Amino acid sequence: MSAAPFSPVDPVDLTARLIRCPSVTPADAGALDLAAALLEEAGFAVTRIPRNGVPNLFARWGARDATRRFGFNGHTDVVPVGDGAAWQRDPFGGEIVDGVLWGRGATDMKSGVAAFLAAAVDFVRRTPPADGAVVVTLTGDEEGPARDGTRAILDWMAAQGEGMDVCLVGEPTCPEALGQMMKVGRRGSITAYITAQGVQGHVAYPHRARNPLHGLTALLGRLVTWPLDAGTAHFDPSSLQITTIDCGNPANNVIPAEARATLNIRFNDAHTGTSLSEWLRSHAAAVEEETGIRLSLRTEISGESFLTAPGDFTELVAAAVEAETGLRPEASTSGGTSDARFIKDLCPVVEFGLVGQTMHQVDERVPTAQIETLKAIYGRILAQYFA
Amino acid sequence: MSAAPFSPVDPVDLTARLIRCPSVTPADAGALDLAAALLEEAGFAVTRIPRNGVPNLFARWGARDATRRFGFNGHTDVVPVGDGAAWQRDPFGGEIVDGVLWGRGATDMKSGVAAFLAAAVDFVRRTPPADGAVVVTLTGDEEGPARDGTRAILDWMAAQGEGMDVCLVGEPTCPEALGQMMKVGRRGSITAYITAQGVQGHVAYPHRARNPLHGLTALLGRLVTWPLDAGTAHFDPSSLQITTIDCGNPANNVIPAEARATLNIRFNDAHTGTSLSEWLRSHAAAVEEETGIRLSLRTEISGESFLTAPGDFTELVAAAVEAETGLRPEASTSGGTSDARFIKDLCPVVEFGLVGQTMHQVDERVPTAQIETLKAIYGRILAQYFA
Repeated sequence: MSAAPFSPVDPVDLTARLIRCPSVTPADAGALDLAAALLEEAGFAVTRIPRNGVPNLFARWGARDATRRFGFNGHTDVVPVGDGAAWQRDPFGGEIVDGVLWGRGATDMKSGVAAFLAAAVDFVRRTPPADGAVVVTLTGDEEGPARDGTRAILDWMAAQGEGMDVCLVGEPTCPEALGQMMKVGRRGSITAYITAQGVQGHVAYPHRARNPLHGLTALLGRLVTWPLDAGTAHFDPSSLQITTIDCGNPANNVIPAEARATLNIRFNDAHTGTSLSEWLRSHAAAVEEETGIRLSLRTEISGESFLTAPGDFTELVAAAVEAETGLRPEASTSGGTSDARFIKDLCPVVEFGLVGQTMHQVDERVPTAQIETLKAIYGRILAQYFA
Repeated sequence: MSAAPFSPVDPVDLTARLIRCPSVTPADAGALDLAAALLEEAGFAVTRIPRNGVPNLFARWGARDATRRFGFNGHTDVVPVGDGAAWQRDPFGGEIVDGVLWGRGATDMKSGVAAFLAAAVDFVRRTPPADGAVVVTLTGDEEGPARDGTRAILDWMAAQGEGMDVCLVGEPTCPEALGQMMKVGRRGSITAYITAQGVQGHVAYPHRARNPLHGLTALLGRLVTWPLDAGTAHFDPSSLQITTIDCGNPANNVIPAEARATLNIRFNDAHTGTSLSEWLRSHAAAVEEETGIRLSLRTEISGESFLTAPGDFTELVAAAVEAETGLRPEASTSGGTSDARFIKDLCPVVEFGLVGQTMHQVDERVPTAQIETLKAIYGRILAQYFA
């Protein structure tokens, strides 16, 4: 029996098909089915690991107890489109125009998922490694709470005796040109939910009321202008962003009783989630004292800062990137959280992916040539790892 | 032919009957019919002046071109009951328990309307003034937009050659004890609707986005802490209140594209609506320059400040109040807007009415004795004016 002729997977077409699944967190909309079909056809053992409604997928080619196990991690969920009318093209159309692929997830990170799926499938078909395993982990909740996504996969893997010896996360990592940057760690992230409670009243009689929006504005003004730090050896400065303020009072002659705000801090190794919780509470207490507005805080630490020390794996990734792009990637810890913060407890983890300039924005898009190059980089990393 | 024996109008019963009409703006629910029947029976010529669905009433006893024309103004609409379940008694029941009359409008201002209707009817029956006119103006929209209420009556009066030489508005004016305070002017009111437009992005990459909430917070922080003035000869300090801030961004990893806020300023005669519009715009421009967040403003001036200068009419009202209550009323310009802001362009206008502590609140109520005293004060004012 002769083998069927080898037909490489087209990562651009695969990205477009993934974009056409409107998988806004926590919807899956068929995205994992696409990945599962491709992986199963190439001989991967695919397991779906849903938890609390979040769709997740684990796939392994090769033996569970192989000597060298290379892992990929990514997510198929995307952030909302925002103002749909502001998009030049259908955010879920997956249109290719003049060599550019448009849509929500084009950079973050359906292209990265498509590139490593294509690279992994081609690799195991063309040069199946002896005594090696290729593992693919995909989640449908990286952009949301991320409690039942990659964490659920890692929990399941631990219970099943599955493992990875290294892991590459395909998140977009390059600021301007493909090859510029890889991520070897991340800042931590803490979200604070603030509720300001005052006393309702008529705007003409402010002395009989207490305006919660004035207390909230005073607190947020202090927090936004406070210098958290100036950066550390491996990390950029910490950054605080208010993400929403809401009151919902329709009457312009009424001082409302309550208002709410949410803020998020991305922090470096000068802080911990706990130290920042305390810092937020101390400012809230001071403004409460000044204004008489009750300011209560609830904080959620979604990750502490971490660093993957320079070594064989970081060098392997950097060399492959340089060979394909001519650029030596900077080893950075900048940017947002990713599921690398969970994986780092299992094995060395490096993130490398596309230029992320339009991620989370209107008109998210990517030149198709970058997806092709990314597939080639991932293929080269696999080949070098198992060489 | 002998005259029928004189039977004075009971202002408490009349207030209770008005409360039983659930005339939440813009509903009338029979309130003006009650007034019209009473006035017509006493010989007033009554004209209904509806405009854009708002019910209004004009009534005159005496000749249109009388030498002295005394006017009353009031409204029969009320604000919504709010949380109906929180009321101890039916807000539209008009119940009298232990000398207290309960219901929406008990203080603002069905009692005031009932008191001046009773006083006016008794006065023209008992001591009809020679060459004098008594005018009653009632609207069903003072608590709402107030565009087609007293304004419509004044427009109609101008077109018909009707007039008033002085006007007394029966709004609640006393903070704690009946007789404490009359209003001889009001602060102006301006509302500003602010939209902050930034650039949406990921919270981890703030340098690629521009956070509209940071620009909005910076602007509102400046405005709230800016001392507008310390009060003027006849006026309290101006006061700025933020009434709402809204963004509606559910994602705590996304910097939103846009946020909105509304604020209201009650201002004294150190300012005008135009000067405050310019002041707001200059701050918005400065913060826009500092932050790069586009801050656009729309303002609505709902009334300029005004003052009825101390003189014969203010003295006449103060003397009558003092004679009936033993208290010399302070001539104040504090508090919210009222329809006096429209009438002041026609003739000197003074406001005097009940203690307003429960107005716009759950369990609005009034001691019935206060309604009796208020009728006596209005009757004394009429008698003195035509003496």
